[in-house]
Amino acid sequence: MEAEFVRWLRERIAPSPLVFPGIGDDAAIVTTPRGHCVVSSDMLMDGVDFHLLECGPWAAGRKSLAVNLSDLAAMAARPLAALVSLALPRDGGAAIGRGLYEGLLELADHFGVAIAGGDTNSWSGPLVISVTVLGEQTGQGPLLRSGGRVGDDILLTGAVGGSLLGRHLSFRPRVQEAILLNDRYALHAGIDISDGLSLDLARLAEESQCGAEIDLEQIPVSEDARRLATADGRSALDHALADGEDFELLLAVAPETAARILADQPLDVPVSRIGRLVAERGLWQSSAQAGRAPLSPAGYEHQFQ
Amino acid sequence: MEAEFVRWLRERIAPSPLVFPGIGDDAAIVTTPRGHCVVSSDMLMDGVDFHLLECGPWAAGRKSLAVNLSDLAAMAARPLAALVSLALPRDGGAAIGRGLYEGLLELADHFGVAIAGGDTNSWSGPLVISVTVLGEQTGQGPLLRSGGRVGDDILLTGAVGGSLLGRHLSFRPRVQEAILLNDRYALHAGIDISDGLSLDLARLAEESQCGAEIDLEQIPVSEDARRLATADGRSALDHALADGEDFELLLAVAPETAARILADQPLDVPVSRIGRLVAERGLWQSSAQAGRAPLSPAGYEHQFQ
Repeated sequence: MEAEFVRWLRERIAPSPLVFPGIGDDAAIVTTPRGHCVVSSDMLMDGVDFHLLECGPWAAGRKSLAVNLSDLAAMAARPLAALVSLALPRDGGAAIGRGLYEGLLELADHFGVAIAGGDTNSWSGPLVISVTVLGEQTGQGPLLRSGGRVGDDILLTGAVGGSLLGRHLSFRPRVQEAILLNDRYALHAGIDISDGLSLDLARLAEESQCGAEIDLEQIPVSEDARRLATADGRSALDHALADGEDFELLLAVAPETAARILADQPLDVPVSRIGRLVAERGLWQSSAQAGRAPLSPAGYEHQFQ
Repeated sequence: MEAEFVRWLRERIAPSPLVFPGIGDDAAIVTTPRGHCVVSSDMLMDGVDFHLLECGPWAAGRKSLAVNLSDLAAMAARPLAALVSLALPRDGGAAIGRGLYEGLLELADHFGVAIAGGDTNSWSGPLVISVTVLGEQTGQGPLLRSGGRVGDDILLTGAVGGSLLGRHLSFRPRVQEAILLNDRYALHAGIDISDGLSLDLARLAEESQCGAEIDLEQIPVSEDARRLATADGRSALDHALADGEDFELLLAVAPETAARILADQPLDVPVSRIGRLVAERGLWQSSAQAGRAPLSPAGYEHQFQ
């Protein structure tokens, strides 16, 4: 189990004064004698994070950078550079490599991200893309998962669910949105939705040592979630809560700050209030109809034993 | 072909004022508004860089960090932190993950490297380990491949060839050696031998816009190379020139500096003079017996088409 492995890792790896906040957040701040930078790594594999035969190398390459930029956005960091390591299939590897770099570089150019290096390999296995991004802190410092406080409102950018219909490849990481919000408002905590709204919110709450309550009626359910629900019989709300790969921002902010953000609506994408952090640990759902009840965090977790 | 792909990449990727010297060196210096850091990434795959069933996860994990530290050593950078991304086989992934982290962390602890994060995944494919290291410049600044000058002597740490007999897993990256040399002497250029002495020397010479001549009799041929030669019928010298994964340092320095280093022998490992940079492009071999002749760079290159 992934969660168990990460727990083991956190116990095994001694905290370092050079690294803040340590492993388990979306990114880390590394302090060097001559400065600091914010870093994050994500690895994408054919058959897991994309299906190369279906989406092609351009979309796979673009996604491999986009998910990393989303991790920096979760910390409200400004991306500066990226390293790209590839395991290319021996057959067709050159064309796949060029195609994926074209997709990756279009996004890199858009966000002013320089390619600082990497490693190009070939093998008999499927395509693997590992990207590391480097960035700098912005505004009022890095946004952590652990900064949430009981009573904070939970805000969400955009709409969620059904990303599998295409948005998981084409999404725009919320880099500018996070920087703008972190510059103008006092944000307490943040995370990007990579594995599922309910799962990632549970992680933010756990790191902030509190619980979280979601107002089910307030969740902005995407059109994709509704389409997928029609096709597979699960509810659109289920898709919104558990699908993942929305790469929207979940933020914890004081209620008065939340009210200002909601009134200002300072982004191109809508910001919604979907719940609050509560003293009672765990994840909770509430609705006018059914009242308050526990909610099981659901989403994507890597399975291994 | 790997070399062709890297050429394509260098043409496609515009130079950035934030990144020096750009892709193609062992590591890069990324300048942020608040400082700078030296970064490098290397990806290792089961069946290519190690054979998991033979070496086990501990050795694979150790090697995945060691090769990255060697890249920083090639720049005479001091390592500070690492990010570790894994594609674990679904079956046995937890034990493999723990084992490889134990190997990796022993080396990290030895060199004072903090783990700053990463990404743990599982899939149905073979083990892939991607590591990114961050470091800081030392001494008289970063050692580049491009700093060599015609007339420079070429120095080599240790002995080379036959690393496949075990040294490719157990080698100690020349981190302290590079920092000490860069601190005490004026080094012009450097590279670590990852793919083969002749191939990596040809790369250094090409980046330095000159040629290189190797004195065949001066190459410190390892015991491993001799043992492998006995077994496979190729000469020990061939193994020394082309085997790769020695992870020794190749340095270009002015002859007077070389003389001082050779006289001082300031490292725990011997330093040898094996040749010089020459005006005529390409790679050359010379020996008392056969005189001077072209030498084809040989070593490991990833094959894909």
